[in-house]
Amino acid sequence: MTNIEYLTSYVNQFVETIKQAGVKHIVMCPGSRSTPLAYGFAKSDGFAFYRQTDERSAGYFALGIAKATKEPVVLLCTSGTAAANFFPAIVEAFYARVPLLVVTADRPHELREVGAPQAIDQIHLFGKHVKWSVDFPLPEVDTAGLAFMERHIHRAVSTSKSAPMGPVHINVPFREPLLLNMEQSLPITEMEVSEVGKLVPSNDFTEWYLDLLMREDKGLIIVGDSIHSTEGFWEFARTVQWPVIVDPLSNLRTSVPDDCMELCIDQYDALLKNEAFKQTAIPNVVIRFGAQPVSKPLTLFLKACKPKVFIVVDDSPLFRDSIHAVTHHVQVETNTLWIPIEEKQASSYLHNWSKANGIATKHIQAYIANEEDEGALAGILFEALPDGVDLFASSSMPIRDVDTFFNKTKKDIQIYANRGTNGIDGVVSTALGVQAATNRHGYLLIGDLAFLHDVNGLIVSRFHQTNCTIVIMNNDGGGIFSYLSQSTETHYFEQLFGTPTGLEFSHIAAMYDAQYDAVHTKEAFQQALMQPKTTDIRIIEVFTNRQVNTETHQKLWVGISEELDSSWKV
Amino acid sequence: MTNIEYLTSYVNQFVETIKQAGVKHIVMCPGSRSTPLAYGFAKSDGFAFYRQTDERSAGYFALGIAKATKEPVVLLCTSGTAAANFFPAIVEAFYARVPLLVVTADRPHELREVGAPQAIDQIHLFGKHVKWSVDFPLPEVDTAGLAFMERHIHRAVSTSKSAPMGPVHINVPFREPLLLNMEQSLPITEMEVSEVGKLVPSNDFTEWYLDLLMREDKGLIIVGDSIHSTEGFWEFARTVQWPVIVDPLSNLRTSVPDDCMELCIDQYDALLKNEAFKQTAIPNVVIRFGAQPVSKPLTLFLKACKPKVFIVVDDSPLFRDSIHAVTHHVQVETNTLWIPIEEKQASSYLHNWSKANGIATKHIQAYIANEEDEGALAGILFEALPDGVDLFASSSMPIRDVDTFFNKTKKDIQIYANRGTNGIDGVVSTALGVQAATNRHGYLLIGDLAFLHDVNGLIVSRFHQTNCTIVIMNNDGGGIFSYLSQSTETHYFEQLFGTPTGLEFSHIAAMYDAQYDAVHTKEAFQQALMQPKTTDIRIIEVFTNRQVNTETHQKLWVGISEELDSSWKV
Repeated sequence: MTNIEYLTSYVNQFVETIKQAGVKHIVMCPGSRSTPLAYGFAKSDGFAFYRQTDERSAGYFALGIAKATKEPVVLLCTSGTAAANFFPAIVEAFYARVPLLVVTADRPHELREVGAPQAIDQIHLFGKHVKWSVDFPLPEVDTAGLAFMERHIHRAVSTSKSAPMGPVHINVPFREPLLLNMEQSLPITEMEVSEVGKLVPSNDFTEWYLDLLMREDKGLIIVGDSIHSTEGFWEFARTVQWPVIVDPLSNLRTSVPDDCMELCIDQYDALLKNEAFKQTAIPNVVIRFGAQPVSKPLTLFLKACKPKVFIVVDDSPLFRDSIHAVTHHVQVETNTLWIPIEEKQASSYLHNWSKANGIATKHIQAYIANEEDEGALAGILFEALPDGVDLFASSSMPIRDVDTFFNKTKKDIQIYANRGTNGIDGVVSTALGVQAATNRHGYLLIGDLAFLHDVNGLIVSRFHQTNCTIVIMNNDGGGIFSYLSQSTETHYFEQLFGTPTGLEFSHIAAMYDAQYDAVHTKEAFQQALMQPKTTDIRIIEVFTNRQVNTETHQKLWVGISEELDSSWKV
Repeated sequence: MTNIEYLTSYVNQFVETIKQAGVKHIVMCPGSRSTPLAYGFAKSDGFAFYRQTDERSAGYFALGIAKATKEPVVLLCTSGTAAANFFPAIVEAFYARVPLLVVTADRPHELREVGAPQAIDQIHLFGKHVKWSVDFPLPEVDTAGLAFMERHIHRAVSTSKSAPMGPVHINVPFREPLLLNMEQSLPITEMEVSEVGKLVPSNDFTEWYLDLLMREDKGLIIVGDSIHSTEGFWEFARTVQWPVIVDPLSNLRTSVPDDCMELCIDQYDALLKNEAFKQTAIPNVVIRFGAQPVSKPLTLFLKACKPKVFIVVDDSPLFRDSIHAVTHHVQVETNTLWIPIEEKQASSYLHNWSKANGIATKHIQAYIANEEDEGALAGILFEALPDGVDLFASSSMPIRDVDTFFNKTKKDIQIYANRGTNGIDGVVSTALGVQAATNRHGYLLIGDLAFLHDVNGLIVSRFHQTNCTIVIMNNDGGGIFSYLSQSTETHYFEQLFGTPTGLEFSHIAAMYDAQYDAVHTKEAFQQALMQPKTTDIRIIEVFTNRQVNTETHQKLWVGISEELDSSWKV
């Protein structure tokens, strides 16, 4: 065999094994050293193949696809700092438990550690933030090398898909020349079937658990991000008749069945700011499925009331409990414990929660109708969302506004956010990745700093069809800091935290040929939302004021709290 | 002491120690967990204090400052993926040997590994790409902690400044509340004086070396990037009378004394493409100071001729020799071996080189005068550069065009590029960092993909005064690939390597209120360069054609080679 023939064999086998392992999406960043794999994937049928020239954005784009599909996505780049640009998305994937198959091309061994260009030490480059990392041998004709590669690709894919899901890293060195024989056919490959078993609880535990559900009235169910599916949840909850706190990322606030509307508590963030209500709401038992919720008042409430039994159901041993209050960690797939019981009656404890939730909802709805601040405008957006779309919420204020202003609904809307590490980086790309995977119309709610941070996320729209409406809340700077203690220290506040850039994004819309609306009033926003979308990317930029936002939000909490006080206080 | 008092003491001491250690520049990214240090630096006198909201760009901005000043720069961010965004600049700093003091704020221990928001595992986050990493204790009142902090800051600064210079990482956890007592004065701190000795060669070596310089006529000096200073070099070279190959990043092509013009060989890249010339140019001895040069023909020439003595002078044991040809590695500061000898006569070997260099220069100058492609336009730019400015060349084509078209000159122009890992990421930011440090007018020559990659580098111009002219060679895609073997494979070439985005940057100029010219001809480019600069950032976008560039460059090499052939061939 010639060099080019065995390089081609190696690459063909690499690509074919990735396909056999079930991977369907490839995100590639252009570069030289990765040429053989780029050609290999490009000429193979059966992959959705995406390109992005900014590797940081590419990483988050792949993350978005994997987040939506819950399947590993190949993220490919050349050697050097290209790979280092993947790091933020890899860290997010690690903590958000999103499967990624990071493939970095590398220089051959003789060009490592000798000052060769674009040669960095890529072995274990991503440290503790990948689940597994392997350095491949140089392409060689010996079948031992091919078999090693085949088995390790299967291992990488299995590792990435096993609980907790996460990123894995394959480093692949190539020696020049980097060109393939494009006509050479595939070698015969050995197949390998990889099956991952399912974790089930013990009979003893299940018995105790079902008994607990039956006999306890003051129980609270919390559902957070990263449950595998919502299927079967409401059938279970309906029989238990405990209030259900639905974090927006649980995707249980949408497609809510009629007879579960009372169970579904979506205003806990407002309610748990009120002392009088909190006294009446203390649970004996809490069961949480999935990740910790976004709401800080909820977190503080759970920390303060320290329920006697606090069960967390999670498919991995890396359990999440930042308040150190969990009493039972149960490592099974979340839906395994959605076992309907003999149907119970609604308790006064449930009525208490749902009455309070109704009060808060009334205030929130009035607020959306009457106010003009970011929260009210977010509420307007959520009400206007059509059935069958996806909503991506940026970190910082947007996810909090979703938590407060996104009311439970029968509409089918999937809500996504990056909550592994809560960064405001890579948000545009992740939203576009989700959209590419689901193929539904995506809405992105984002602040000006986060949009600016990943403005390069839009580059994919130059190479691929997209369908996304981006609503930018432009309050000219870091809005969230106005809600934190930093805002009490007026020295340097604008300089260190406000950081107003004075930038506006009509120019970006023009650069990317995107439909654009600048909106300064609520009425204009409502009108813009009614206009048809005419380009792949649509940008609606809403200009708001950080100080007004903070003050108006404050007024809302006071209004709700006063009515709760008068309803519950002695 | 109250919590706030000892937090303030800790932060005051942290900031004061950084100052005592000689650090002068702080680059900060806004965030919450880093609040105490942000306030600490902001309220302290004596630092140049910069802000950038995109952490990736901030990393490269700090790198630019450190590259120009050769002093460690503090790069500060909050916890979470903010820190991961620093990774590309840290990797570049590691390989380019640029001192950085990376300071990441972290969550306290009780919020690590429990799923708390924005908490990632930051200990040894940057792996093998920092020289040293330390995790600080939580702020505490005990003076043992303060003394530990003080000594470790000094150690970090010393490590970062010692050969090979590079990035170090300090991880600093803080517990809430994060506010300082702004009025509290500094505690008394112990001083620590850190002095780094100087490496000197042995007497035996020096004797052998001086004898070699005296007796050998067929010697070649090569000077690359990352020598500490150019002072004293020409006094030395003048006495040795060997041809001197000056990589543009040696900064020996500018401020060349009259009587050294003949020694200064700047057209080696063109000459060493010619077989006939190469046969006459083989040296017996090569001495290289600093990093490996940019030129590939030079590298291939050295690899082929394998000189009997090939000395590399470098201040660190991590010596760079990607062609495995070096015979002597001498670990001393580069200028230590610039020892003038008894003045020699010019040899025929030197005349051979300088005659060929003259031929190539004549062709290059005619090319710049007569052609219209990117190379000629780059030449036009270099000729137009005023005395006393800096030039930053992006990786990929611009640095190669500098290598070819930047002729030796008496003008004082410093040339910079990122050659640690040769990435096209972070280029705008590094150039602006250099400009911030030198305070001279900076010129940046960059391609469209690299400009787009770090378009967020411009954000610093919203917070700080800048003075930079950016010349974008917009050939709509990855121009360099047309020169590589990939271009022979027409399947998928545009899709995988050309990657035309169709974007143009007048919109970016408008967004950042920057003076802007779109240029389609050489004449228009010349006119634009003569126009006065009216804004901090000026953008000149030059539209070129990838295919024309490749073909015209090719013609140049053929022209030079033919004349060399007729001059040297039998």
